[in-house]
Amino acid sequence: MLTGERYRESLRDGRVVILDGRRVDDVTKAPELAGAIDWVADTYDRYVSTPSGAHPMYDIPASVGDLRRRIEVLLDCDMTASLSAAVLALASSRSPLSAADTRYGERIDVFIEECRRNDWRVAEAITDAKGDRMLPPSKQHDPDAYLRVVERRPEGIVVRGCKMHITAAPLVHEIVVLPTKQMKRGEEDYAVAFAVPANTPGLTTVAVTTAPRQRDERDFPVSRHHAVPDGTLLFDDVFVPNERVFLAGEVEHSSTLAHALGTWERTSSIAGSAREADLLVGLAQLVAESNGIERVPHIRDKIAELIIYATMVRAGVEAALNAAYGEGDDLRPDELFTNVTKCFASMHYHSMLRNLQDIAGGLVLTAPSHADLDDEEIGDQLRRYLQASPSMSGTDRLRIFHAVRDLTADALGGWHMVAKIMSGGGMYAQKMVARNHFDMAAARRSAAQAIGLDLPTRP
Amino acid sequence: MLTGERYRESLRDGRVVILDGRRVDDVTKAPELAGAIDWVADTYDRYVSTPSGAHPMYDIPASVGDLRRRIEVLLDCDMTASLSAAVLALASSRSPLSAADTRYGERIDVFIEECRRNDWRVAEAITDAKGDRMLPPSKQHDPDAYLRVVERRPEGIVVRGCKMHITAAPLVHEIVVLPTKQMKRGEEDYAVAFAVPANTPGLTTVAVTTAPRQRDERDFPVSRHHAVPDGTLLFDDVFVPNERVFLAGEVEHSSTLAHALGTWERTSSIAGSAREADLLVGLAQLVAESNGIERVPHIRDKIAELIIYATMVRAGVEAALNAAYGEGDDLRPDELFTNVTKCFASMHYHSMLRNLQDIAGGLVLTAPSHADLDDEEIGDQLRRYLQASPSMSGTDRLRIFHAVRDLTADALGGWHMVAKIMSGGGMYAQKMVARNHFDMAAARRSAAQAIGLDLPTRP
Amino acid sequence: MLTGERYRESLRDGRVVILDGRRVDDVTKAPELAGAIDWVADTYDRYVSTPSGAHPMYDIPASVGDLRRRIEVLLDCDMTASLSAAVLALASSRSPLSAADTRYGERIDVFIEECRRNDWRVAEAITDAKGDRMLPPSKQHDPDAYLRVVERRPEGIVVRGCKMHITAAPLVHEIVVLPTKQMKRGEEDYAVAFAVPANTPGLTTVAVTTAPRQRDERDFPVSRHHAVPDGTLLFDDVFVPNERVFLAGEVEHSSTLAHALGTWERTSSIAGSAREADLLVGLAQLVAESNGIERVPHIRDKIAELIIYATMVRAGVEAALNAAYGEGDDLRPDELFTNVTKCFASMHYHSMLRNLQDIAGGLVLTAPSHADLDDEEIGDQLRRYLQASPSMSGTDRLRIFHAVRDLTADALGGWHMVAKIMSGGGMYAQKMVARNHFDMAAARRSAAQAIGLDLPTRP
Amino acid sequence: MLTGERYRESLRDGRVVILDGRRVDDVTKAPELAGAIDWVADTYDRYVSTPSGAHPMYDIPASVGDLRRRIEVLLDCDMTASLSAAVLALASSRSPLSAADTRYGERIDVFIEECRRNDWRVAEAITDAKGDRMLPPSKQHDPDAYLRVVERRPEGIVVRGCKMHITAAPLVHEIVVLPTKQMKRGEEDYAVAFAVPANTPGLTTVAVTTAPRQRDERDFPVSRHHAVPDGTLLFDDVFVPNERVFLAGEVEHSSTLAHALGTWERTSSIAGSAREADLLVGLAQLVAESNGIERVPHIRDKIAELIIYATMVRAGVEAALNAAYGEGDDLRPDELFTNVTKCFASMHYHSMLRNLQDIAGGLVLTAPSHADLDDEEIGDQLRRYLQASPSMSGTDRLRIFHAVRDLTADALGGWHMVAKIMSGGGMYAQKMVARNHFDMAAARRSAAQAIGLDLPTRP
Repeated sequence: MLTGERYRESLRDGRVVILDGRRVDDVTKAPELAGAIDWVADTYDRYVSTPSGAHPMYDIPASVGDLRRRIEVLLDCDMTASLSAAVLALASSRSPLSAADTRYGERIDVFIEECRRNDWRVAEAITDAKGDRMLPPSKQHDPDAYLRVVERRPEGIVVRGCKMHITAAPLVHEIVVLPTKQMKRGEEDYAVAFAVPANTPGLTTVAVTTAPRQRDERDFPVSRHHAVPDGTLLFDDVFVPNERVFLAGEVEHSSTLAHALGTWERTSSIAGSAREADLLVGLAQLVAESNGIERVPHIRDKIAELIIYATMVRAGVEAALNAAYGEGDDLRPDELFTNVTKCFASMHYHSMLRNLQDIAGGLVLTAPSHADLDDEEIGDQLRRYLQASPSMSGTDRLRIFHAVRDLTADALGGWHMVAKIMSGGGMYAQKMVARNHFDMAAARRSAAQAIGLDLPTRP
Repeated sequence: MLTGERYRESLRDGRVVILDGRRVDDVTKAPELAGAIDWVADTYDRYVSTPSGAHPMYDIPASVGDLRRRIEVLLDCDMTASLSAAVLALASSRSPLSAADTRYGERIDVFIEECRRNDWRVAEAITDAKGDRMLPPSKQHDPDAYLRVVERRPEGIVVRGCKMHITAAPLVHEIVVLPTKQMKRGEEDYAVAFAVPANTPGLTTVAVTTAPRQRDERDFPVSRHHAVPDGTLLFDDVFVPNERVFLAGEVEHSSTLAHALGTWERTSSIAGSAREADLLVGLAQLVAESNGIERVPHIRDKIAELIIYATMVRAGVEAALNAAYGEGDDLRPDELFTNVTKCFASMHYHSMLRNLQDIAGGLVLTAPSHADLDDEEIGDQLRRYLQASPSMSGTDRLRIFHAVRDLTADALGGWHMVAKIMSGGGMYAQKMVARNHFDMAAARRSAAQAIGLDLPTRP
Repeated sequence: MLTGERYRESLRDGRVVILDGRRVDDVTKAPELAGAIDWVADTYDRYVSTPSGAHPMYDIPASVGDLRRRIEVLLDCDMTASLSAAVLALASSRSPLSAADTRYGERIDVFIEECRRNDWRVAEAITDAKGDRMLPPSKQHDPDAYLRVVERRPEGIVVRGCKMHITAAPLVHEIVVLPTKQMKRGEEDYAVAFAVPANTPGLTTVAVTTAPRQRDERDFPVSRHHAVPDGTLLFDDVFVPNERVFLAGEVEHSSTLAHALGTWERTSSIAGSAREADLLVGLAQLVAESNGIERVPHIRDKIAELIIYATMVRAGVEAALNAAYGEGDDLRPDELFTNVTKCFASMHYHSMLRNLQDIAGGLVLTAPSHADLDDEEIGDQLRRYLQASPSMSGTDRLRIFHAVRDLTADALGGWHMVAKIMSGGGMYAQKMVARNHFDMAAARRSAAQAIGLDLPTRP
Repeated sequence: MLTGERYRESLRDGRVVILDGRRVDDVTKAPELAGAIDWVADTYDRYVSTPSGAHPMYDIPASVGDLRRRIEVLLDCDMTASLSAAVLALASSRSPLSAADTRYGERIDVFIEECRRNDWRVAEAITDAKGDRMLPPSKQHDPDAYLRVVERRPEGIVVRGCKMHITAAPLVHEIVVLPTKQMKRGEEDYAVAFAVPANTPGLTTVAVTTAPRQRDERDFPVSRHHAVPDGTLLFDDVFVPNERVFLAGEVEHSSTLAHALGTWERTSSIAGSAREADLLVGLAQLVAESNGIERVPHIRDKIAELIIYATMVRAGVEAALNAAYGEGDDLRPDELFTNVTKCFASMHYHSMLRNLQDIAGGLVLTAPSHADLDDEEIGDQLRRYLQASPSMSGTDRLRIFHAVRDLTADALGGWHMVAKIMSGGGMYAQKMVARNHFDMAAARRSAAQAIGLDLPTRP
């Protein structure tokens, strides 16, 4: 198992990373990535010795209790959470893919074991560039709009294309690439899944991050530690050896991996949403206290609405875990509860920010910086004027307002808003899944019974 | 155990019931109450022989499994569900009330056993007339605005006052009366709980019901069977023997029963809401199919919103049951999840009706009656013009529209809307309970930690 | 001009009306229609002498001031409001239809003048039975699913079909029939518009109404006066003389009338919504006062939300009128504001009912009847217990609760809910119109400019 | 009248501005303020010659037409809009303040004339530090929690305190200071209104801004030009000569100015909201086009919701202007419509951002930077993969996504979210004003009439 220090070393592997138009020679030296790397490093150090001899994110859950423990670990490791979803998705896709070709299953076993033994972090790469959204992969003007096999050699395949929205891309060891959707006959070259190391030749990671730049980090109490870098991956004729190819042409299996991944992604997403919603409640309470208005009826009402949101999201998570289905390694959280909760959490998140901001007030925007408080001439005045309650200093109140801005009304706040919607696909995707998993036959039957109607044939 | 038939007989006990200004000599003969009595009678017949020798609603749950079974029974018996909440509330209040006076506990045991043995249905009576809402009971202009003890005799007490919103009042055997809120010193006469038979002298039940009146019952496919009568109870110096007095002056225990009852009431309420929400989904699907538009995108989207609502309510119920707390007979569903789910279900119910009505269209209002279809001259024309899809006859389509009207846009529909809000207290009450049960200390702590703030003292 | 009395006489004209499966020989004698007929009669009596010598609903507006006066008249005449939309629609369609055939324009002039002189009330008949919604009129299994010309004779046409959702159908003198949508080549027989008297041979009106039936009318303080009857019209080979045919085959003009009507219908609808929203505010205030809780913060907040809704709807009406366009008799309220306001008012109406019901409480459902208060033995008790504030008697409080139930949670309440959505077409229809009328070109242009982008060609 | 160039010069006046803890010697040289100064300078250049010989923002509106022209100017000058509200507020407060002391009115006249002649921009300073929100100014632990007169001299007054949330503070010539609320007897020192130049001794402006810092400005297409700096003003014993004192002790007039200002502020706010809402619609359309999905039903529906929001806000603005009241210079937009529209626009803004972000997708977060596109090796690839529609280049699509992020999900986006709520006071403030201005007497009366109730006395 790696320590934080050895993790840092492992990132100096010649990978090609571009950030803001500049080539980053050593990601561990890039100030914009430092917070995120510290964050991941910490999740190594804290789990450096475990009973299983591996990081607990590699424990495949086989019971509801395991699932709950897993969620705890994911939340504790936060962003890293998403870095094991690909492994779980591979694990649950092992059987169906073996049905296509027994070698796929064997390679998956080997890959998972290597990840586990080397304590790797793994990014999932699904979304293609997609070109014209109204056309399938094979009908695109640009044949590379979806990542595809451009050459098949005896010892492996060569792939070309672009994968977008890759969380933590510059910070991982391996990239697992999956088809973004069900492919059809004639689209065999697009039905391709594989793993490559982050430093493989031909692969370029174009990174972005909401980490705060030159400004005083004290004004960014959350994002200085917890900004997630994202990446766009360019596969410019990348060679993948056979041992790492998990699918290459069997169109009928092309959505297996994405489907399996979706469940795990949305599970992480809703568990994170539940925690984040509690955080909004706590922050709303703190900011109300810092304003000395926590007992004002309309403030209490807004906090109550936040509590209702947070508790409903938590109820959704609990229901999804308790209704987990599948046997042994195939155990998965309930898909209806998972998708509906994901959609619900997205749908109301922005209104909840409105509540928090409404409780906080204009100081979210106009709070002086921490450096202003350091000023010899005006520091004292500012601190004095910022104090609103005897139980909290002006400095602490200032910190709370910067936190509200950082988390809800600045770069990281924007990231959370959009990520809340888009993680695991937008709300429309979850509505579709919800429709598919809802037991409509039962609902129709009981509605027909309730109104004394012979159940009509479904049209 | 009673059969349906013996239940009917038992209601002919001289009780004083007034409906629409008329005295009802025999409730089983009142056409407005017939549907509801059939409904209760059926819940006797269906459970006439059980392993325990008692109706399962008398099985006190001692595990999450028991709770689930109980919910099943309640849903199966529907309205009757609320008729056992008082018994559960008494059971869980037994210990605290015994602390006040050991005789209270003993009387509760005896009463519950008699209810069980006689297979009685029991109404709960909490809400007082309340007079001026800004004043406590003891400061009211009218001292009877809250029900109170007007005389204490060696063998019992005499009470006077009014209890409102009594579900199923004219159909039960016993009335359990509780104080509506915490009483204070000086309000001993208002801290009174007891049980009386429905036919006790001095008690009058003023009944109301949404049962359809003279119109063709086919146009009321749901309310003809499932309209719940409510009642206002007038206690005009009613004598209660000591054996049925469970509290009479100990103000410090005055809210124990209401609190215990609240949890069970809201549990029934949310379980009912979950089922009802599924019913709305099913009905929306049926009505969309009957219109032949179930594949139109905006219709699918509205149904998806109904699915999300229904599934979130169900998640809330699941979470409340799984997080049940307390030992043995004291087991109770989690109060945070229960109250939040209750509030959530109320908050969005009306919008969900809007979705259903928007899917259905104007025929909800303008559908001809079933009797119109019987007309020799125009019946055929109407049936023909009402048909919108080869898979459903015009008559069936008509029935669906009448059901939508009956359930959402007529007397029973109105009852559901208001009952959805008010059962277990309005949304404000649930917000208060939610605030009290939400772990704000933890939320504050984790918010402070997330933003790097030393946890401020709570003001 | 007619008086109320002569209006009543004019309804005894042999028309064929069926209600609840029974033939109504004389609509003025049917108790279910009495309230509505009184209502219309009253709008005759109140306007029996006017400067123009005609009912003001026949004054074609030619300025914003006229429009405002017209709205006042419509609101004053309420339901009758809709009874002149058809005339306005004919007036504004005069020119385009004359373009098709000059005789159409002449006949329209004659018809309007006769309506005006005879002081007729006119129903508009648009919506067809429609059969399979996924198919056009000419492809239906049943060729009569849309009303059509089945025979063309020298002196006129013969039509067959069904028109649904006809407001006030049994109470009017004339029916104006329009095509429900744009017809295509090959659908000439469906491109038909005409007027017929309500008693024309072959026409049957199947009426429905939310008027309260046998119960005490005091418990229905609104619906006893203001329930609107609706009707389904069956045209069983009805002959229409040429003088009353306004379109018969010119498919390219088939949507002209429906389009013109839509604007006027939605204008009436939003004006009515604005008034109704104010009524909800007033009722919420009254019910809060009757409960003595009008100063409680969360109650005030709910009333404020009602005020915001009411004022935004009113703003929409004001904006639509002030932005009226067109010259002289062709003046029409702005379509964007009209449609958006209609959609907005529908979208939030149900939530506003929730607010009102939440303020009111359970007594909406469980209020004793007025007849109960007449009871010698318990009347006094009930009145006493119903009183919650020294400034309002128990009887008045009871009346308010019955009004809330009648208006929001009973048959008329259901009618309002669905009519609020469906009048002028459902919300989807208004969204489409809103999209069409919104100046997207300007919005795109200014967005492109704001972000420094050369305006892209619209794809 | 000033040109942009002379405006810049005028800012080099020795004012004390602190930004991020550093003293800014010359605001025109601070890169963080450059965009905003350019913006203001441009509003000088564009209006350098006008018929009235003064900037049109100094034209006091005396008719609805004037109001509309004024709104046009304000929108054209944008941020600068708020810089004339103080002047209008002074103008409309002239009469009432003269009643207190005729000199106040004369000084106001002189001040307005000087502002006009010198073409000054003027900031309004209202909100005090406020200390403990539950206590009035005179009961605060810190007597300076509200700005106050600390010394009265023959030639003027000396003031101390802090004013927060001062839009554009570092960019204006004059500061107009008003009491934040109604003061009571004993709080004479807090009932103080005056004007001071931005460079007056003892005044320090602590500035903040959402202007983008070191990153490539192309990635911030809006904020690089349109970030508004805000400021906190510290009055450390500032001397104000009598000629600029407009109130100093007359507590009964203390809320006159704030009230007058509120209306003008909220008018600017809603006019800006209407324009911004149209911008969101346009941006949503552009981003949908750039994704090639503008015809997908659920996308169209989300855009329709944006259109409804934008149009309702616009309707509110139109209604407020058309219902303007008051004579001549005292003309003001209707307060009910203004406040309600302000509250409505705030309430739903966050949900509208959700719609836009949901339409856009994850690229809002993960879009490569413009500098990445400059890269010789990968620029072409990125451009190719970013293209989704033949009618828009990858570079243009990238710009749109950066604009969506900049405007809704980054520092400026956060500023807009919070400013949308807080401008003119939070939503609670507007609800209060709305309640006060809504004609509740009429609503109660018509509700009572509708339900046949004698109008109850208001309790």
